Parts: sequence; C-alpha cells; structure tokens
Amino acid sequence: MLASDSKQDNKKVLTRDNMNPHVRAAEYAVRGELAIKSEKLKEELAQGISHPFKSVVACNIGNPQALNQKPITFFRQVASLVEYPDLLSDENAELTSKLYPSDAIARAKLLLKHIGSIGAYSHSQGIPQIREDVAKFISGRDGYPADASKIYLTQGASAGVQLTLQMIVEHSNVGIMIPIPQYPLYTATLAVLNAKPVPYYLDESKGWGLTTEELQRSFDEAAKSGIETRALVIINPGNPTGQCLTEENMRQIVDFCHTNKVILLADEVYQTNIYMPEERPFHSFKKVLKSMGSKYEGQELISYHSISKGMIGECGRRGGYFECEGMDTSILEEIYKISSISLCPNVQGQIMVDLMVNPPKKGDASYALYQKEYDAIYHSLVSRAKKLEDTFNSMEGYSCNSADGAMYLFPQIQLSKKAVAAAKEANKAPDQFYCLAMLDATGVCMVAGSGFGQVDGTAHFRSTFLPPPELFDEFCSSIKKFHNDFMNKYRD
Amino acid sequence: MLASDSKQDNKKVLTRDNMNPHVRAAEYAVRGELAIKSEKLKEELAQGISHPFKSVVACNIGNPQALNQKPITFFRQVASLVEYPDLLSDENAELTSKLYPSDAIARAKLLLKHIGSIGAYSHSQGIPQIREDVAKFISGRDGYPADASKIYLTQGASAGVQLTLQMIVEHSNVGIMIPIPQYPLYTATLAVLNAKPVPYYLDESKGWGLTTEELQRSFDEAAKSGIETRALVIINPGNPTGQCLTEENMRQIVDFCHTNKVILLADEVYQTNIYMPEERPFHSFKKVLKSMGSKYEGQELISYHSISKGMIGECGRRGGYFECEGMDTSILEEIYKISSISLCPNVQGQIMVDLMVNPPKKGDASYALYQKEYDAIYHSLVSRAKKLEDTFNSMEGYSCNSADGAMYLFPQIQLSKKAVAAAKEANKAPDQFYCLAMLDATGVCMVAGSGFGQVDGTAHFRSTFLPPPELFDEFCSSIKKFHNDFMNKYRD
Repeated sequence: MLASDSKQDNKKVLTRDNMNPHVRAAEYAVRGELAIKSEKLKEELAQGISHPFKSVVACNIGNPQALNQKPITFFRQVASLVEYPDLLSDENAELTSKLYPSDAIARAKLLLKHIGSIGAYSHSQGIPQIREDVAKFISGRDGYPADASKIYLTQGASAGVQLTLQMIVEHSNVGIMIPIPQYPLYTATLAVLNAKPVPYYLDESKGWGLTTEELQRSFDEAAKSGIETRALVIINPGNPTGQCLTEENMRQIVDFCHTNKVILLADEVYQTNIYMPEERPFHSFKKVLKSMGSKYEGQELISYHSISKGMIGECGRRGGYFECEGMDTSILEEIYKISSISLCPNVQGQIMVDLMVNPPKKGDASYALYQKEYDAIYHSLVSRAKKLEDTFNSMEGYSCNSADGAMYLFPQIQLSKKAVAAAKEANKAPDQFYCLAMLDATGVCMVAGSGFGQVDGTAHFRSTFLPPPELFDEFCSSIKKFHNDFMNKYRD
Repeated sequence: MLASDSKQDNKKVLTRDNMNPHVRAAEYAVRGELAIKSEKLKEELAQGISHPFKSVVACNIGNPQALNQKPITFFRQVASLVEYPDLLSDENAELTSKLYPSDAIARAKLLLKHIGSIGAYSHSQGIPQIREDVAKFISGRDGYPADASKIYLTQGASAGVQLTLQMIVEHSNVGIMIPIPQYPLYTATLAVLNAKPVPYYLDESKGWGLTTEELQRSFDEAAKSGIETRALVIINPGNPTGQCLTEENMRQIVDFCHTNKVILLADEVYQTNIYMPEERPFHSFKKVLKSMGSKYEGQELISYHSISKGMIGECGRRGGYFECEGMDTSILEEIYKISSISLCPNVQGQIMVDLMVNPPKKGDASYALYQKEYDAIYHSLVSRAKKLEDTFNSMEGYSCNSADGAMYLFPQIQLSKKAVAAAKEANKAPDQFYCLAMLDATGVCMVAGSGFGQVDGTAHFRSTFLPPPELFDEFCSSIKKFHNDFMNKYRD
C-alpha cells in the first residue's frame, strides 16, 4: 500500500505530455539550443574550465549594452533622478547640480509632476502625458496627426505584438501573414495562440525584396486551404534580413492589405537603424498610408516601436509602444481591458519611451553630449555592419546581402555534401550543425537560419554586428579561421 | 461603385464580434467601470469642473505610492545608482558619498558587477545572482533549502500567475480551483485561457475560513460535470478578504492537494502584511509542505511573491518571482522557453526583488533608517486597517471581518429593498449601484463585490485602507456621511 502510494507520487500532475500543447509547440531559436549552450560555456569559463576561446560572444540577440555599448548619458541621468527624488530637494540642490545637468533635473521634475512616484501603478494604457509626447513625436516624424488615446505603452514591442495578435486570433483557422525569414517571436506567438502562420517569402536574390505577387500567392494559397487571413506582419527594417522598404513598395503593400481586407501590423522597431539614409531612408507605414488619400481612409494598421533598438539599446528595461490607426473603437476598449489585467507597463520603461521620443534639443544643456553619443554609436554601427558583410563575402561559400538597416546580417552558406551528411549523422539541421561547431571553436553564438525560416535546402544564420569596436577585428578573424577549418574538414 | 467601396471600408476587419472570444469574455473589475469613471472624474476636476469632492481617492487598487506612501529610501538609492553608473566613478566618488550612504554604493557596485548594465537583456529566468539571493531568503524564512534553478523572476506576481496557468491549461475542460471571493486576475486569466474556474467558497461567518470539506465538495462537483481539476489557487493572506491561514489549516490543504492530485498555487504576495502576528503569523506553503514529511515529497507547488505589496509597494516597477517545488523537470524547461519568448523581466524590477529579499542588515549604514521607515509604514497600516474596520462596523447594515493581513477590507452591506429596486432600474448589480453612488458623492473609488464573486444575494465591496494617515479620518467620515444619506434616500 505504501509502495503503491509512493509510486503514484512519482507521477506528476503536470508533465510535457499533458501541458498546454500550444505552449509546447512554440519555438524560439534566439534563446534556444545555441543560446542555452553558450550560457553553459560562459559558466564553465567562469569556473576556470578551459575552452579554445577566452569569452563567449553573444551575437544571437540584439543586446547592445551586453556587448559594452554605453547607454545615452542624458537618459540615464533622468532615470537616476526619478528613482531618488530626494536628489531634487532644495537641501540637495547644490550637490545634485554638480552631478546632473540642468535639463536632466528639469525633465525629472516634470516627469515626477505627472507621475507622482515611479513606484505607483500608472494608467494601464501608459502615463497620459507620455502618450501625448509619443503622439507629438509621431506627428512630427510623419507630418500627419497622431492621437494619444490610440497609443498604448508596453513592456517592449514583443509584449505589444503578443497582445495585439491575441486580440485578432478568433479561432484556429485564423491566418497571419509573416515574412520568411521572420523574427521567431511571430511563429512562437502564433503557436501559443494556435493560429496559422501564412508565410510569404522575401527574395534573397533581390536584396530580400518583397513583391505583392508573392503576397497575393501566399494569401490565395492560404484561402484555398480554408484559412481566413486577418493580418499581415511586415518587419521594416527587416529582422533578420536588414532590408529597408521603398516608399513605392510600401504603397503596394498598403494597397494589398486594403484590397484583401487584412490588418497591417508594422514592426518598426529598427526605424532609426538606417545605414543608407540616402538610398533607403525609413518611412513609417502610418505616413505612407496617410499619404495615399481617402480611398485608404480607415485601413487598420498597428505600428510597434521600442526603446530596445536604435542608438538607445535599453533592452533590459522593457519599454515600447504601439499606435492603432483605423481600428474599431470596440477593439481599442478591449485592448485597454486586457492591458489592465496586467495592471501597467513598468514605469521606468515608460519614462525611457518619453526620453526616446523627446530627447535633448538644440540649446539644451545636454544636447551636445547627446548628439555626440548618438552619432558615435550610429557611425560605429554603420562601419561594423560593412566590415562584417565584407568579411562574410570574402569567405568561401558565403553570400551576404548588405544591411540597409536593423542590427543583423543573414548570410547564406553553401555547405559541402560531407558537412550536410555529418549534420544528418548528428541529427541536426545543417545550419544548426555549423553554428554549434562555430560556438565550440570560437565562443561566438549565432542563430541558425532554420530558426527564422528559409527557402528549403538553403542554409543561413543570423549574426548581430554588435561586438564592441575594439574587439571587432578579432571577432571577424575568429569566424574566418573557424570557417576555413570547417570547410577543410568537410571538403567533398 | 465608389459608394459601395466606401461602404465596405466602414466594415472593419476586426470588431468585438469577431475578435478572440476568450479575451472578450475576460473581466477585470479592479480597473473596470468604477475605475474608468474615477479616471474621468479626476480629469474633470483637473479641468476645473466642479464635483461634491476635491479629489478622487483610489481605494480600488492596492497602490500605496499613488496615495503618498513614501518608498523605502535605501531601495531607491540603489536603484538610482545603478541607473547612472558614472556616479560610482572615482571622479565623482566624493560628491556621490555626500548624497548616498556607503552601503547603497556598495550594493549598487555589486549588482552592476553581476549585471553589467541594467539596459541589457538578462537571463530569461532572471539574473542568476539575484535568484541565488531569493533562494537564500526563502531558505532563511522557511528553514528548508531552496534552489535558484527553480526560481523564476517575473514582471510582478500577476505575470507569474498568467505564465504558470498558461502552462497548466491543456484543454477547455481543465479546471482550476479558486476561492470565492477571489482576486479577479484569476477569473480573467482563466477566461483568456478558456479553462474552467472551479469555485470554492470562503466562509464569511467564520472570518473567511476555509474548510477541506468545502474544497472536496467543489472538486467533486467539478469532477461530476467532467472537469479535470489540475490545480488549486490559495491566496494567503487573502485578497480581497484579508484572512491569514493557520498552519493546521494549511496542512489540511496540502493533504487535500496530495490526495486529489492537484498542483497547489500559493499566491503569497501579502506575506509581510500581517496585522496579528501573534495569533495569525504568516507561514509559507513551502515550509508547511516540507514539514509534513516524506509522504508529501514531490507534491507540486508554485509560490508567488511580489515587490508591489508589503511595506515596499513598488507596484509600478513590475517585479516579483515564483518558486517551483516538486515540478517535473520537463515543465521547468518549458517555463524557461516560454519566458525566453518575452526575453526577460525588466531589470530594475529584478533589482528591487534583490533588495526586498536582502535588505540592510544590523550594522549597515542604512539599517536604522530602513527599519524606521519599514516600521512606520507597518504600524500605520495596522492602525488604518483597524480604523476602517471600526468605521464600517459602526455603520447601519454593515458587517466587516477584521483583516489578519493584506491591504483590504471586504465588508458586507445589507441594502434595502428600495435600493435593490433602484439598482435594478439602473441595470446595475446592487453593490455596483452602491459603489457608483459612493464615487459620485465622495470621489472614493471602491470595487463592488460582484467583481470578486460572493454568495448569491449578498452585497460587498473591497476597499484598501491605503489613503494617507493625515487624510484618513476625513476619508472615513466621508464614507459614513454618504452611507447615511444613501440609507435615508432608499429606506424601505
């Protein structure tokens, strides 16, 4: 009797076999097998276990401050002051003024006037005055008005994407069009929601270009198999692909959405990571839609932005927003309701959104330093993107499009038959096998293309170009050396 | 043709009618009709529109810092320093040491050593060293070991509850036992997940007591209607009810879970809000389970904690953790995976968890101030809880249990037939009608009992006792005056 009791005890109520099957089905390669292995290697290095490299370089994720990018000083000064309002008291004024510039002090006071305490729950949609500042930013950027009541502050763009997709998915036959390659947040979220990803392919041979013919093919094929496509996700600038859409192309996409009655979901988190501003400037979908006249009035569009990317890179803080355009009022209310269940986005993240959309201006005490820091990060990103692209394109079997924007390159590699066979032997996709070998040899962690989706039979990986400038050459040459060794080892 | 086009345009792709029906079904009264109306009143007051009150008092939500509770100084000093690490440079050392105590400086340096930058994504499960500190705190509190690898940092306890419930719900016939009255996060989350709430009732006549007979009745009735009950939610100390469980009662609950093969979900966010520490001290379910011996070894338990409550009240920061005990390894891995899709909990929230579990100790520079602030908030909460309870119990038709813990009272009101009829006329539940009338007359925002669940035919509301001490008497007398007028108006 006791023995049987105890045997029963070993059977858990909850196991992978009987858990939520949609959660089980979700995959997120950016923090998958390669990332988990890289964490383990990092721990081993810290314990003194020897490896062929001195440190792990996390190129699997766009996490600039983890790779020593310095935060924008003004932003952090304001964040520091709102944390400890005693610094703003008359008693401390003199000391504080020696450590903080006058505009940071003024901004902190203004924010605290609106917020009260950053330790209090805010309005579930985000602090009203910060949403007003976001609206001003959008209308300044686009030349068309924006409405604070249609802006929702979030814990990063990912949270906004998850929340809005959750609204849209009525049943398991709802389809959401996503680019291939895509950022795996989308497939993971759709898996959890038990909705159908409707893939459309970006054309690698045309710099990851996007045609409405391909959009229509994708939509029509889905319709034929009974899928009701409700929305189209565009990532612009692209992740993992780095392309930046032309205005003409964007108009075609808006027209496609309008004709086919789908909501446009515009992931624009890399809008300031633009590396060819002359040939390929950033245009927001909001602006393009508004410029297309009354025929398109009322087209449903949700645009996402984040404090994690750009020159800010405040990923760990979890802040962002989305703007709803043309959405039904009943849906805006439902978005508020669902946001309220999670109470509010963290207030420090909200403050950073405010700083992002309203940075120091000409004449402000911090303007010169802000501009200097911003430009230095920007130019360094431009040069690192180019250097890594050149490195890749100099390597046997590689071909790599240049990055118009974002933080990644997504090179294609031609692997030998022998390498493909070895991968099969190891029960890995060829690109996963290649990336695991690279991690073992160099400590560099990439994400294999299979995690993003790619044309069948091709092999890619995504790499950030975020390793710090002073270590960048070493980073490039370690990849190059690894690749030569790998090619020699598996030469047909 | 154009007219028809334009007509078509008015039909939105997404409306309340075809959105996710489970999201539509969710209700969250804490920020529902009353809260939305109170926000509107606040705006109107700001615009100079006259009302019978000078300010809106938000008693609908446990949000201490919004009602002027001062944050713990040491915690904010550390948070301020990690935001702006330049303060820690040799160059600024002298000035910084005049504004910040030595232990805050040391702690900030230690945290930054572990974290790098608070603007970087952290480990998806939470910063390893902070999880180690949480494990130390738990083992110190309970006298049983805790394992950092089974602790997950979250964006507040709500996020942890949502994440773990999401893991458990395999299909729409999975049931989760919840107390009635309950905190509406639970019913809202179960609605979104399309799972079955399995209600068990707390006995108001016995100080909101909980019997295993009632648990078994609830479980058996659900089983009869084909529901597979997988987990039991306990909120201890209770929300909205404020009761604190005895150790004996907790043992019975653990035994119930073990016998009936259900996971125990222990919401312990109010564990330091204990107002009768002699008669009703807090015991964690982890400790009670561990003390029950080998028969119960392996019982699945998830315990939640938060930085939003206690004497800390850092709600807006969104931080917390949950600890898994006895869960299958495959589930721990799946929890990590699903956490990684959202990248990481915000790092400032993680730091506040570290400070909560590892506050200044005897001998530290900040110990005296920390203890003074902590005790002042605690004693003030004790006295305000008592004062509000006495006020309620002095009022015609009220009966109110005392709060052993938490931040709320949940009085029952006997409303006259005339009042019930007037409510029906207005198409409102009687308690909602009463609370709306109170808001209109006094600016005090409560949440009606129907938002939490209550025995049919009874009327309650939840009120925090958080209005600031200096305004507390005025707050109590305004409710009292409103209630007299209301009773006179609707006397049978």
